[in-house]
Amino acid sequence: MSGSMSGKVLVAQGGGPTAVINQSMVGAVLESRKFRNVEKVYGAFHGVRGIVDEDFLDLTQETTHNLEMVAQTPSSALGSTRDKPDLKYCQEVFKVLKAHEISYFFYIGGNDSSDTVRIVSEQASSAGYPLRCIHIPKTIDNDLMVTDHCPGYPSAARFVAQSFMGANLDNWALPGVYVGVVMGRHAGFLTAAAALGKKFPDDGPHLIYMPERTFVIDNFLADVKATMEKYGRCVIAVSEGIHDEAGVPIALKLAKEVERDAHGNVQLSGTGALADLLCDEIKSKLGIKRVRGDTFGYLQRSFVGCVSDVDQREAREVGEKAVQYAMWGDRDGSVTIHRTGFYSVDYHLTPLIDIAGKTKVMPDEFIADSGTDVTDAFRMYLRPLLGSKMPDAYRLRQNRVPKILGV
Amino acid sequence: MSGSMSGKVLVAQGGGPTAVINQSMVGAVLESRKFRNVEKVYGAFHGVRGIVDEDFLDLTQETTHNLEMVAQTPSSALGSTRDKPDLKYCQEVFKVLKAHEISYFFYIGGNDSSDTVRIVSEQASSAGYPLRCIHIPKTIDNDLMVTDHCPGYPSAARFVAQSFMGANLDNWALPGVYVGVVMGRHAGFLTAAAALGKKFPDDGPHLIYMPERTFVIDNFLADVKATMEKYGRCVIAVSEGIHDEAGVPIALKLAKEVERDAHGNVQLSGTGALADLLCDEIKSKLGIKRVRGDTFGYLQRSFVGCVSDVDQREAREVGEKAVQYAMWGDRDGSVTIHRTGFYSVDYHLTPLIDIAGKTKVMPDEFIADSGTDVTDAFRMYLRPLLGSKMPDAYRLRQNRVPKILGV
Repeated sequence: MSGSMSGKVLVAQGGGPTAVINQSMVGAVLESRKFRNVEKVYGAFHGVRGIVDEDFLDLTQETTHNLEMVAQTPSSALGSTRDKPDLKYCQEVFKVLKAHEISYFFYIGGNDSSDTVRIVSEQASSAGYPLRCIHIPKTIDNDLMVTDHCPGYPSAARFVAQSFMGANLDNWALPGVYVGVVMGRHAGFLTAAAALGKKFPDDGPHLIYMPERTFVIDNFLADVKATMEKYGRCVIAVSEGIHDEAGVPIALKLAKEVERDAHGNVQLSGTGALADLLCDEIKSKLGIKRVRGDTFGYLQRSFVGCVSDVDQREAREVGEKAVQYAMWGDRDGSVTIHRTGFYSVDYHLTPLIDIAGKTKVMPDEFIADSGTDVTDAFRMYLRPLLGSKMPDAYRLRQNRVPKILGV
Repeated sequence: MSGSMSGKVLVAQGGGPTAVINQSMVGAVLESRKFRNVEKVYGAFHGVRGIVDEDFLDLTQETTHNLEMVAQTPSSALGSTRDKPDLKYCQEVFKVLKAHEISYFFYIGGNDSSDTVRIVSEQASSAGYPLRCIHIPKTIDNDLMVTDHCPGYPSAARFVAQSFMGANLDNWALPGVYVGVVMGRHAGFLTAAAALGKKFPDDGPHLIYMPERTFVIDNFLADVKATMEKYGRCVIAVSEGIHDEAGVPIALKLAKEVERDAHGNVQLSGTGALADLLCDEIKSKLGIKRVRGDTFGYLQRSFVGCVSDVDQREAREVGEKAVQYAMWGDRDGSVTIHRTGFYSVDYHLTPLIDIAGKTKVMPDEFIADSGTDVTDAFRMYLRPLLGSKMPDAYRLRQNRVPKILGV
């Protein structure tokens, strides 16, 4: 096969790692190696930072077998970065791309990374440098526009669902209140996945708090109280991004120091503060003794051994499609996933301007009127993404023995 | 088959749930149902609490198929309790056992639960009530005496190993310091399991802190600094039970309120405080910006979908053996596991007095001289317990591209 331009391919990975981000990288590498106009396939270490530093691996000298093994390994095998290139940064990028005769740039990442691709694409265009730039989607937050869902999300969602399935069983055995804090700054998709761990009507999570709804502490306490009265226990899924009516994150209200990344985002993960605050509120205001909080943290995006096979397959395909769009097409863009059946998908190339730097949140039809649960529409949306062989939880049947002594 | 005494069997589960505790329960139930002297098999809801409350399920009316499904479900299907019976409590227990003509009592639990079995056994003996009492071991802490290891530990250890395998990959992609806090009040077995997530020499966890060694904050900071200088990143496994030279838990030093359970144990789990404290120390004293902490919390004992098949098999067998010892033997005791090969085990019935209320910690031969790593002896001890199909992590090979512009 032969694409339009001769030259080298460069692949890089940006933002937070996922369980399947290497599937996309390997998909792009193996597909690129089929094109005879492709001289070599390079990988940049640690995203755009590796380009500026000329820190490249020659992936044409990697075996297919090892690439397949790496594809099944979670987290970014090329390393990642949180850098967001400005004009000066981009000038450095071009200098390196030109020197190494890179003609195709594939960047795997979320909305911040898609914005990086947009800037690089625009800079290349205005500099008259022939460079095909394709953004390959990836994010556990599932918050990219246009695409039906984002590779990486289904596997993280599966981890969250399996976690709450277990947390519910644990909480049933030793009743009390359990608070599980899930990643997701603006979008509640990952937190909402907790609902898929529920089987029986009285199972938890009994309450789900997503950042799409204002978090009111008094309402929260009333919800917990009502659930305790109904079931004698309460399992709660909370997004790290929950905020008050003024938009101030609840986690921020109590944090002593605020850490921000290069994109100006407040650091919400990597601390158990939100879970501890909510547990303290429940203990002190409701007088409940057994209150436990977990912050799922990095486990939910990097745990080895919990992956959706549907997610693996699609992550591979968006990497392959990115190369096909680059070689046979005539424009830059972002690869998007479009649902065509229950369950089947197709892929499109969407203009970068429709994706870059924008954030999708949970649509109203996915959130129950109560604001503390999801709808069946969401369950139908997520279920096929979780893939095959989902674990299941069973109960003993209630063949009660009549009391002899008791009342 | 016919055992020595006629009457009913009662099975109960105590203490913290594990991934395989229902295997032991189902093993005991199905084995009991084979004996014609067994009139019925009851299960008590929520351990000894359910006995006092006469809260029994008739497990003779449960299908074998559903029991097998429940066996594969994590957490205690009969519910659990933290109650520790005193004399008065035991008098209530006997009243109920007599009324329901219980002749065989099987209690699945850790060292607190084995102490409960010991008290009940002694009370029955002094009251002249014919009751066979067998303790079936279970604890993710792996801290029971005599037995080579405890059912429940291998699956939790597998979760911890897989978690650190992923955390290491994540930390490699976005370098910095990562602190993962693992359960284990006195024994470091579960924290030490983090070492089994390591493949390459530069992989994390680079530092492992177990409660068997005194935790000195200045030494900790020096260790982290040295690791950062060597690898540019640092992955740390910390037991929740680490303490200073006076024996004061590090978590306790900063906790505002201390919560104790019915056994007088300080509540260390269900809060992210220790991880946050250690991260704050590293940030402020070493000036490292990217420092993240996770507390594995309840995920490590209740996550659905991460189980060791060796653990499943052995948990089933200790339940079966308990019934066999009760029916064919003439004394009470605790079922213990004894290693006979690499890898094979046998089972014994050990006197309750040798187990009850005692705690085993990591032997010196399992801890490296540095105090921050495990030995090969420990790796050989744990590896077969993790079971088959352990995930593996692969890397890209380092075919570096020569720099054109750079130095």
